[in-house]
Amino acid sequence: MSVQRLEQFRERIRQELDRTVDFWVKHSHDPEHGGFFTCLSRDGRVYDELKYVWLQGRQVWMYCRLYRTVPRFHTEEILEAAKAGGAFLRKHARVGGSSGLWKCAFCLTRDGRAVKIQRTIFSECFYVLGLDELSRVTGDRDMQVEAEQMMEKVVHWVQEDPSGLGRPQLPGDTPSSSMAVPMMLLCLVQQLSEGRGPPTALKYQRVGQWCVQQILMHLQRGGMAVLENVSVDGAELQGCQGRLQNPGHALEAGWFLLQYTSQWGLQDLQDTAIRSFIEGPFHSGWDPDHGGLFYFRDVDGHCPTQLEWSMKLWWPHCEALVAFLMAYAHTRRPELLECFTQVYDYTFKHFPDAQSGEWFGYLTQEGKVVLDFKGGPFKGFFHVPRCLLMCENMLDQILGRDQ
Amino acid sequence: MSVQRLEQFRERIRQELDRTVDFWVKHSHDPEHGGFFTCLSRDGRVYDELKYVWLQGRQVWMYCRLYRTVPRFHTEEILEAAKAGGAFLRKHARVGGSSGLWKCAFCLTRDGRAVKIQRTIFSECFYVLGLDELSRVTGDRDMQVEAEQMMEKVVHWVQEDPSGLGRPQLPGDTPSSSMAVPMMLLCLVQQLSEGRGPPTALKYQRVGQWCVQQILMHLQRGGMAVLENVSVDGAELQGCQGRLQNPGHALEAGWFLLQYTSQWGLQDLQDTAIRSFIEGPFHSGWDPDHGGLFYFRDVDGHCPTQLEWSMKLWWPHCEALVAFLMAYAHTRRPELLECFTQVYDYTFKHFPDAQSGEWFGYLTQEGKVVLDFKGGPFKGFFHVPRCLLMCENMLDQILGRDQ
Repeated sequence: MSVQRLEQFRERIRQELDRTVDFWVKHSHDPEHGGFFTCLSRDGRVYDELKYVWLQGRQVWMYCRLYRTVPRFHTEEILEAAKAGGAFLRKHARVGGSSGLWKCAFCLTRDGRAVKIQRTIFSECFYVLGLDELSRVTGDRDMQVEAEQMMEKVVHWVQEDPSGLGRPQLPGDTPSSSMAVPMMLLCLVQQLSEGRGPPTALKYQRVGQWCVQQILMHLQRGGMAVLENVSVDGAELQGCQGRLQNPGHALEAGWFLLQYTSQWGLQDLQDTAIRSFIEGPFHSGWDPDHGGLFYFRDVDGHCPTQLEWSMKLWWPHCEALVAFLMAYAHTRRPELLECFTQVYDYTFKHFPDAQSGEWFGYLTQEGKVVLDFKGGPFKGFFHVPRCLLMCENMLDQILGRDQ
Repeated sequence: MSVQRLEQFRERIRQELDRTVDFWVKHSHDPEHGGFFTCLSRDGRVYDELKYVWLQGRQVWMYCRLYRTVPRFHTEEILEAAKAGGAFLRKHARVGGSSGLWKCAFCLTRDGRAVKIQRTIFSECFYVLGLDELSRVTGDRDMQVEAEQMMEKVVHWVQEDPSGLGRPQLPGDTPSSSMAVPMMLLCLVQQLSEGRGPPTALKYQRVGQWCVQQILMHLQRGGMAVLENVSVDGAELQGCQGRLQNPGHALEAGWFLLQYTSQWGLQDLQDTAIRSFIEGPFHSGWDPDHGGLFYFRDVDGHCPTQLEWSMKLWWPHCEALVAFLMAYAHTRRPELLECFTQVYDYTFKHFPDAQSGEWFGYLTQEGKVVLDFKGGPFKGFFHVPRCLLMCENMLDQILGRDQ
């Protein structure tokens, strides 16, 4: 591949990142209550005022990461918005649950009253992600401690006792391992450890190892298939749940593992991450007829029961871009850059909105935009800018621009 | 419309009903544990053994209704399957909840162990529906009493105290009225009262009146729009939840109301049902580009956040067929038969599977089959045969064949 092509990628990616940041800075801030509107129509109007905690935490993280690491985003406006988002989270996200325990809400009203609580760990996880990164920007040691305390609680739920999540124990509900859980925890281990030196890194080392081992348990059928759900012993589960594949998720796990190998230097794990979590899911998840990555697949070729299984969503394509560029940066194998290009061409042809900026999120199998909003209950300021920022940085590194 | 066309409708509908019953009798019975497999692939193979309680109750009801009212389905095979389904439900569906209370599970393993409990009333409602109809076939008075006791519990949750459902009370979760709840209860009131004489009819009369009043509360904007969710006082709710429309659901409510007017003779209500719950939602919910009814709409024209909003599902088309034929039978207005024909032509062109029998359930906006199974977690032996049975009966009546 020519240097010129790589320069073109970099230039376009940089422009898209600027447009994406502009869009959210312009449309998502709530000057009255703090926090962020995330239900934004194609042109940025707020079509629903609910505030989703996952997306609040993610936007705080993304703003701080941009502010802290990219000179052109080191602005007062971005810093103040991140602080206001953090303050909103700290003030409103924690709510009392049953029996005196508390959880983070999943969804809040505009002024911060809890609407819904999920019986999972993810609201808490994005709370940790946002507050830890904010504490790095502001130097707020209390906030960092708060993030670490919340992390302890999440690890306790996951590794020791899930009863605080509030799910009833049912005799037919066989305990299982969802790949989302160790992926999320590994992401937090990397967040909390990064640049903090040996004592903190050691503190999270065991959790990190556990996450990697758990993720690898989802590699089944002699390394030929990543399955979203397996038994706690790493065996296949019966039925649709056991056969479910989510190519975008596998690709994301792939680059999480690659990042982990950069830190710990594990050649076998790097090979597995690239072959089984990146190349495999990409080839089996790519639509040969219309291009793009399917949202869900069934490993035995049954029809998934998710109505949206054949749709093309923005975030699996973001994960694929990051995964292939990172795999190329690690190995310099040209076929990985070819795959990156294939994803890049599909992604930049279909998702960016030339008219109003930012990306559409939801296409039909054939590539038609079917939900035209830029933000919604599950699409915020996260996958698009994280992907663009990481790809810009990796291209700088590949092009030798980062010196 | 010519009598000949009506005869053609009737013949095709009768054939489809026979093929549909054949499909489920052949593929869905579990001879080992009782109850029904509902995850059936295109050709009838079981692709998941989970047993969804909604669908168990509905299949018991449908078998018994066919056995009891249609001579050609008055067979030992159907009766025995219905009994085995009822026995499975009575043995396994009720599970202990928190604080000594119980609920019906949403989903069971093949051998009847609870997998999941929803914090809503619907599993209990389909339990009532199935057992009451089964008690009519078997003459089992205990079973009828059990169905009525469960109904009392549901009414208590809905009208007096929802705490037994297990949902936490959250400060931002404004109490609201979902149209599904009074529709479901009205359906049960009609089921439990039918043919049982004045004492029972009187017993449920007040609940029935409450349901009708609650359903009418969802008619908003001067009678021009049916909204799925309103406040408990009948005001519009903010945001996506408040603007949501579900054309198939409105059409189903329309024929529920028409059935109610047949019983109580209410001309104004008949007019409202036809104009506002049947004709209005049909015209605003019909896709002018590709035909068929959208699954969801936003009353102000925003994009719904449900990924499947533009898909064409089998059941709204079933409800539309019943609604228009019933409206025509009540009024003999020819334009209602024209609408029936429009829905009939789309439905019979797209949903039945000429190869393996039964209907596909899920099409893209353009009408392509995108999930090719015949049964799944939400598609069982219910909407298709209920629609076909009711349409066959109504066509018999319209054609003067029912004497």
